[in-house]
Amino acid sequence: MNDTPLFDTVAIIGVGLIGGSLARALRAAGACRTIVGGGRDEASLQRAQQLGVIDRYHLDACAAVEGADMVVLAVPLGATRAVFTAIKPGLASHAVLTDVGSAKQCVIQDACAVWGAMPRHFVPGHPLAGAEKSGVEASFATLFYARRVILTPLPHTDPTCLQQVQEMWRLSGARVEQMTPAHHDEILAATSHLPHVLAYVLVETLRRMDESEAIFRYTAGGFRDFTRIAASQPEMWRDICLANRGAILSMLEHYMTHLSDLRATLIAGDGSALHTLFEHAKTTRERLDIS
Amino acid sequence: MNDTPLFDTVAIIGVGLIGGSLARALRAAGACRTIVGGGRDEASLQRAQQLGVIDRYHLDACAAVEGADMVVLAVPLGATRAVFTAIKPGLASHAVLTDVGSAKQCVIQDACAVWGAMPRHFVPGHPLAGAEKSGVEASFATLFYARRVILTPLPHTDPTCLQQVQEMWRLSGARVEQMTPAHHDEILAATSHLPHVLAYVLVETLRRMDESEAIFRYTAGGFRDFTRIAASQPEMWRDICLANRGAILSMLEHYMTHLSDLRATLIAGDGSALHTLFEHAKTTRERLDIS
Repeated sequence: MNDTPLFDTVAIIGVGLIGGSLARALRAAGACRTIVGGGRDEASLQRAQQLGVIDRYHLDACAAVEGADMVVLAVPLGATRAVFTAIKPGLASHAVLTDVGSAKQCVIQDACAVWGAMPRHFVPGHPLAGAEKSGVEASFATLFYARRVILTPLPHTDPTCLQQVQEMWRLSGARVEQMTPAHHDEILAATSHLPHVLAYVLVETLRRMDESEAIFRYTAGGFRDFTRIAASQPEMWRDICLANRGAILSMLEHYMTHLSDLRATLIAGDGSALHTLFEHAKTTRERLDIS
Repeated sequence: MNDTPLFDTVAIIGVGLIGGSLARALRAAGACRTIVGGGRDEASLQRAQQLGVIDRYHLDACAAVEGADMVVLAVPLGATRAVFTAIKPGLASHAVLTDVGSAKQCVIQDACAVWGAMPRHFVPGHPLAGAEKSGVEASFATLFYARRVILTPLPHTDPTCLQQVQEMWRLSGARVEQMTPAHHDEILAATSHLPHVLAYVLVETLRRMDESEAIFRYTAGGFRDFTRIAASQPEMWRDICLANRGAILSMLEHYMTHLSDLRATLIAGDGSALHTLFEHAKTTRERLDIS
């Protein structure tokens, strides 16, 4: 425990895998005196309190953020605007506000809609960490260790608030970076949102075939790795798809073009073109494992 | 070592991951007295001999199969016809012939082209086992343990030969099943060949983007699982794509239709339809982990 914690009180709205893991990490780092949870599911908040993840909780998000000097939104993207609206009257004048949403432009739009303009004390953020499991029971203090956290401040974001959010994530073990909201949304559409969509559609394609029972019986390790992300939370991914629709559609266009090209190559039986494509992909993919 | 080994001499043409692992498994089970390797890469065959995977080798495939009572082809699909042609004069009259190719109709076509008709002593087979690593150094005796091996005999295949191939794979620890060549090729197109193609195309799509360096820097666990199979051997996958082109194209049509549907759903912003799709996929995918 540090002698001078970074914060007195941290409020975390949404104490699931991400919110719960952040709470555990901050406690382990001695980063604050008190952690208050907020949310709608009382059983889950009780469980979080029993586990020692939070000190107390409120079902009323506005009450949960009262007096907190750091407020973290860790709710599904689709709930962001409603939670902003709920907490607005309760936020202390000195409170720093941040979030963990997987898309950033939509969160900024939500904030602008609620506050009339992007608040200077709001620092949008996104930890690149997660798992197929969800809920506070799945949370652990080292989830963010050596993972990237991307912050997407605007030019007029308060530099002190930015610094405090940076410091909070560094205490959780993460590597903190900054980029523009639009760049974040493009990068995530490419590296996370599109792959999830492709995996969901593959499982759905096979499920809809006449022989789907037989097909699934013969899936092996490669298929299971490939489709692991299709077991992710449907609500969360519905929200992400809607929130980052533009960037995902743009990536999907690129992908469908390349897939059509590959189809043409297959129809032509062009082994040399197939080999070149696969060789490039292999070299590129292998570089990831040593990076 | 069994007192009465199943075979006196087994010839394995192509002593890589699959051929080498089968050799190790047969030796561990005491299934034969002698294992002869055949292939084109002398350094690799020398290494296989040094490792004790094979007893001796021939660079001439015809010489390698002489006197063998079981001959296993474990070469890339694209080399199958040439190897059939090479070994034809050397095969003993009692020899059983099998292969491990990832597509079966094309192998049968190759056999018919070389022998004029499908030989009764040839039992086409495919172990559903593999890894991104290749070569005899990566081989191990338990690769096939609890994995499925699919045999695709024709109605006039010699039942004794079929039984011997079954027995050989069972000694390696595999679960042996039978289906028609066409059914095999459809199932594999769905569960293995299409996912490989999709992963290759995703990596290629990202590689071709202006920001590909930045994009790959932000890939996380989900992306790496999804694209692991894109690090597979380009030669092998070129051959598989060409050999099973019809079934892969048919699966690709299905997939592209579902992907276009998803694109339309995204454009319409239909959250309810997205949720239904993701929920179905999640339920289906989760069943795989407990099966």
